[in-house]
Amino acid sequence: MIKVGIIGSTGYAGGELVRILSAHRDAEIVWYGSRSYIDKKYAEVYQNMFQIVDAVCMDDNMEELANQVDVIFTATPQGLCGSLVNEEILSKVKIIDLSADFRIKDVEVYETWYGIRHQSPEFIEEAVYGLCEINREDVKKARLVANPGCYTTCSILTAYPLAKEGIIDMTTLIVDAKSGTSGAGRSAKVPNLYCEVNENIKAYGVTTHRHTPEIEEQLGYAAGEEVRINFTPHLVPMNRGILATEYATLKKEVTYEEVKAIYDKYYAEEKFVRVLEKDICPETKWVEGSNYVDVNFKIDTRTNRIIMMGAMDNLVKGAAGQAVQNMNLMFGLKESEGLEFVPMFP
Amino acid sequence: MIKVGIIGSTGYAGGELVRILSAHRDAEIVWYGSRSYIDKKYAEVYQNMFQIVDAVCMDDNMEELANQVDVIFTATPQGLCGSLVNEEILSKVKIIDLSADFRIKDVEVYETWYGIRHQSPEFIEEAVYGLCEINREDVKKARLVANPGCYTTCSILTAYPLAKEGIIDMTTLIVDAKSGTSGAGRSAKVPNLYCEVNENIKAYGVTTHRHTPEIEEQLGYAAGEEVRINFTPHLVPMNRGILATEYATLKKEVTYEEVKAIYDKYYAEEKFVRVLEKDICPETKWVEGSNYVDVNFKIDTRTNRIIMMGAMDNLVKGAAGQAVQNMNLMFGLKESEGLEFVPMFP
Amino acid sequence: MIKVGIIGSTGYAGGELVRILSAHRDAEIVWYGSRSYIDKKYAEVYQNMFQIVDAVCMDDNMEELANQVDVIFTATPQGLCGSLVNEEILSKVKIIDLSADFRIKDVEVYETWYGIRHQSPEFIEEAVYGLCEINREDVKKARLVANPGCYTTCSILTAYPLAKEGIIDMTTLIVDAKSGTSGAGRSAKVPNLYCEVNENIKAYGVTTHRHTPEIEEQLGYAAGEEVRINFTPHLVPMNRGILATEYATLKKEVTYEEVKAIYDKYYAEEKFVRVLEKDICPETKWVEGSNYVDVNFKIDTRTNRIIMMGAMDNLVKGAAGQAVQNMNLMFGLKESEGLEFVPMFP
Amino acid sequence: MIKVGIIGSTGYAGGELVRILSAHRDAEIVWYGSRSYIDKKYAEVYQNMFQIVDAVCMDDNMEELANQVDVIFTATPQGLCGSLVNEEILSKVKIIDLSADFRIKDVEVYETWYGIRHQSPEFIEEAVYGLCEINREDVKKARLVANPGCYTTCSILTAYPLAKEGIIDMTTLIVDAKSGTSGAGRSAKVPNLYCEVNENIKAYGVTTHRHTPEIEEQLGYAAGEEVRINFTPHLVPMNRGILATEYATLKKEVTYEEVKAIYDKYYAEEKFVRVLEKDICPETKWVEGSNYVDVNFKIDTRTNRIIMMGAMDNLVKGAAGQAVQNMNLMFGLKESEGLEFVPMFP
Repeated sequence: MIKVGIIGSTGYAGGELVRILSAHRDAEIVWYGSRSYIDKKYAEVYQNMFQIVDAVCMDDNMEELANQVDVIFTATPQGLCGSLVNEEILSKVKIIDLSADFRIKDVEVYETWYGIRHQSPEFIEEAVYGLCEINREDVKKARLVANPGCYTTCSILTAYPLAKEGIIDMTTLIVDAKSGTSGAGRSAKVPNLYCEVNENIKAYGVTTHRHTPEIEEQLGYAAGEEVRINFTPHLVPMNRGILATEYATLKKEVTYEEVKAIYDKYYAEEKFVRVLEKDICPETKWVEGSNYVDVNFKIDTRTNRIIMMGAMDNLVKGAAGQAVQNMNLMFGLKESEGLEFVPMFP
Repeated sequence: MIKVGIIGSTGYAGGELVRILSAHRDAEIVWYGSRSYIDKKYAEVYQNMFQIVDAVCMDDNMEELANQVDVIFTATPQGLCGSLVNEEILSKVKIIDLSADFRIKDVEVYETWYGIRHQSPEFIEEAVYGLCEINREDVKKARLVANPGCYTTCSILTAYPLAKEGIIDMTTLIVDAKSGTSGAGRSAKVPNLYCEVNENIKAYGVTTHRHTPEIEEQLGYAAGEEVRINFTPHLVPMNRGILATEYATLKKEVTYEEVKAIYDKYYAEEKFVRVLEKDICPETKWVEGSNYVDVNFKIDTRTNRIIMMGAMDNLVKGAAGQAVQNMNLMFGLKESEGLEFVPMFP
Repeated sequence: MIKVGIIGSTGYAGGELVRILSAHRDAEIVWYGSRSYIDKKYAEVYQNMFQIVDAVCMDDNMEELANQVDVIFTATPQGLCGSLVNEEILSKVKIIDLSADFRIKDVEVYETWYGIRHQSPEFIEEAVYGLCEINREDVKKARLVANPGCYTTCSILTAYPLAKEGIIDMTTLIVDAKSGTSGAGRSAKVPNLYCEVNENIKAYGVTTHRHTPEIEEQLGYAAGEEVRINFTPHLVPMNRGILATEYATLKKEVTYEEVKAIYDKYYAEEKFVRVLEKDICPETKWVEGSNYVDVNFKIDTRTNRIIMMGAMDNLVKGAAGQAVQNMNLMFGLKESEGLEFVPMFP
Repeated sequence: MIKVGIIGSTGYAGGELVRILSAHRDAEIVWYGSRSYIDKKYAEVYQNMFQIVDAVCMDDNMEELANQVDVIFTATPQGLCGSLVNEEILSKVKIIDLSADFRIKDVEVYETWYGIRHQSPEFIEEAVYGLCEINREDVKKARLVANPGCYTTCSILTAYPLAKEGIIDMTTLIVDAKSGTSGAGRSAKVPNLYCEVNENIKAYGVTTHRHTPEIEEQLGYAAGEEVRINFTPHLVPMNRGILATEYATLKKEVTYEEVKAIYDKYYAEEKFVRVLEKDICPETKWVEGSNYVDVNFKIDTRTNRIIMMGAMDNLVKGAAGQAVQNMNLMFGLKESEGLEFVPMFP
């Protein structure tokens, strides 16, 4: 039984980790960290866990945690994991960081986009970017996994095969993404109030959203060139789900079948990436509560562009589900263990 | 492996049966009945099942089904199961009917409230009302189970201990219930369109809703007297969830502790009924996707009334989940097998 | 032109006052009070007012305001208006208080239910309870109007004719009310976050909600007896709208026509109360954005009860609209001036 | 008093025409056409109109209508207006067609994208494309106005100044649009059911949506060149609102101030187009219920692109509001008459 500690267990991503891990047959949560609710019963913070989780919330003591658990998930704002981790801790325990601290290899890029100073840049190189479908083998050997961002997971997986195979002009790539509101977290802010979000849609972080360099870096590796994109996130009145609609110019004429074959080459064997059938557009509702990413594409011969689409649950494949997928890989378990949720509809 | 056939697998309750059973380790769906979608791939009707269910939809042939499966779920409108069932079928296969055909013992009451003639009244007596927490032992031995209605499951379980123990005046009982829109089914009608339901709440079926006599009958058994209630359902702009708010006059002065003890007497050992802690009001979101019913109560000494509240997911405990719970009982499996979903929040 | 000052103009009720008054042909807002946003442009707080309102937010200085305006609206939490008002101010300016400070005649009841000490009980007697349809003549002469609560407006108007005519047993009255989330205000609290409210319904303030004594007092006047009710509010995932479902035992046998005639006696001439046609249940969406209250009823001969229903927009007839209706009456304008919004659907 | 006839008054756009016109001081609806509800009281179809509209629904008889009214609005599916209009009718009455029949000058393009044969191509040339801000003078003189589509109004106005001034490369223009569900109309179809739309977002009509050639034609006129774009609509779980997010490569380096000046050049005097302040992203909620279009932009020097954004209410500026704006122009009224709705928030 893998002993698990969660730092930041009372945010939405943390809560989803608890939901998933409390049904995982090879893992057991022994530390529900939550600075805001120390000593409060976890089930009083998340009433859905009543009679399921009996524990009380603990502090963020990573040193102590490292002695008690096999793996730590940090589901906290940027900067926290980077400020706590050190060699001694990493020598005792594996860490899966759901924040951005170790996602970006170039520390200057991180510091520029996030506006904070990195506290432990010495671990950036070692950290493995935990997009399982792409970095599976490295994840298996990792001590420290940087769990990808929600928008980034969806955006990257949607375009990856075409970037990798070089059939799209990367200088033309535009990602227009739409997210449910749980991505904004559980902190009490006016813009996240029900009446502000409901019956409303808006773009935000236009040209400045922090997931931009992360997408650029990863698609850059795939394409073998430096990549600059436009990434525009939108806030949608729904709890869960991310949809990425991506546009790129084709480098050459291709048929539906050729592109489908490329997607299949990368994803046919992937349990959690479903390449939909022709002309079926991904919908976030069809993956809700599950670890799936649904992708598809449409070629427009009029404009010589391809429109790629991807949908996933931002709290599962976009956060906690992928984190558990990484844990499974790191501990030699079946990759899908505890993640075989059938999407819930409606 | 229990072989399962579903008649009406493409309605919302049918879809939920598929979601639950496709992850059930002792059952296997071999017949996806759907008169409307015969020969269509099931995953084209419910895209969430893509790469999970490979079957095509079949017709409603119960005779043929009886030869192929161990248990039939009928998730169809009233009248269908009653028109198909016969002794030969029941000698071969167990039936769990999610419609109202066998819920009400007095056929005249059924025919009056439902406005249709019952086609097989000879099986009404044999049928067991499948509210597992109350009729567990009878369900285990049943060939034909009448799976309770969604509103009724919630309404009955919320008041049952107090009715049974005789501490409320049953002539004063009022049930004000609120349901998500999946309870209205998947048929294409203007009142169920997004723009008609969204940003709206209304009562409907006031004094005439068909779940009324079902609640009256079952609570009448509990109370040992004939019961007449007011039951008022409301349509709420959300997909899933039922909340029942119930009012009754107390027969005598009671304390919180005394009433809590009564609820605990009936539910402390019940996995799927959670009696919440003092002053916590049930919320439908805390049980979403799960088989739980959360109940609680509040005594008002000013008016000498007790307000009872219950919340559940109408598609799980209110339909498919309870049906599978019944199946587990009928086949001697662990009662919670395949039903241990952790509620999904948010 | 009536000069208007608003204290608390940046809450949801305050914002609705601005929406309504900025299109009112006989009134002009000259003071946008908002302690939280002093010196900030109003249109930056409520972007819908961009290029419509050019003013900046001001402080809460009621003394100064009294010199500059003809009427002050206080759309603030309980206690503020009571702490600011004095004889000198009231000699200069009319006040319409949207808080509860002057709604309840018995100061002890106020202090018990609100848990605060009343700062100016000497004005309670003078204050007129501004439910226009009932207290029209008194409102016309008032200096200080206590604008009714949202739940109370709906709950009272729905039952008023039957209470007044004595055909229901007031000891049996139960009000089960459902409200959109704007009723919870614009303050940043976790329970009001989008993801907490969306896809959820719950009761709250069960037996203890502060609108209870207000409904009891007013219906008590109508019935000519002391009234004790159960009032249970629920939070519904929608922005606007209140639906009240009310239950009472009939004192004698009555027909639909008799009851309809009673409702018509009180409301046939009322522009803003619409008694719906037989069997049409009120829906909040049908009154959204307007000052209407839609009411109807259903007699249940099985239980000898009547179920009364009322729907309105909590921010209009339940707050700002009714406040403007009171202003119109106080200043001798046409009662419906500036309030003839056609409900918006969908 | 302008006598108005509406063909298709019971769809959502038709209902919005009724809402707007019933409060218009210079117009009076005398014909509520609705093939589906002939002889039914209009207020029974739209209960919000109870006690406001007393009429019953009439058939689609345009000949008869032409004798009785001054202007006909056709809020019907494509093909109907084109099949009914003729010279005699146009000699008697003005027509504002909310369908696509007369929007596209090239009848072949129309027939290709809409898949139907145009019944009266002889009137296409005469018809004026009723985007008031652009074609104001022509609208004033028109007999037949083609009221623009919802997506197109928003998409065109958002990019128009930059297309007109030639600062963006039109071959790079991509429009990613998001719409509330009222745009899908009131017909009873499974994909428009509450539970299918709620908690979901999807793209649809990718590369094939019929508003594409309309946007291309109009922006082509502005740019003085043939335009081919990608237009991708998305269905958002909200009733009203369209947001267009548009991407284009800049032809030369420009500053924020230069682009702002271009927008102001075209829109500073326009009542219904609001160019927001720097860095404020348009949100659909801020224009709900009103005739405003809010636009803004952001320059990305990293990619040399500009991101343009526009938000409006699809039923008002995107349909009925713009139609009334056209009527006002055609009849020499103040352009904003009956359209000065303050946006409703929340």
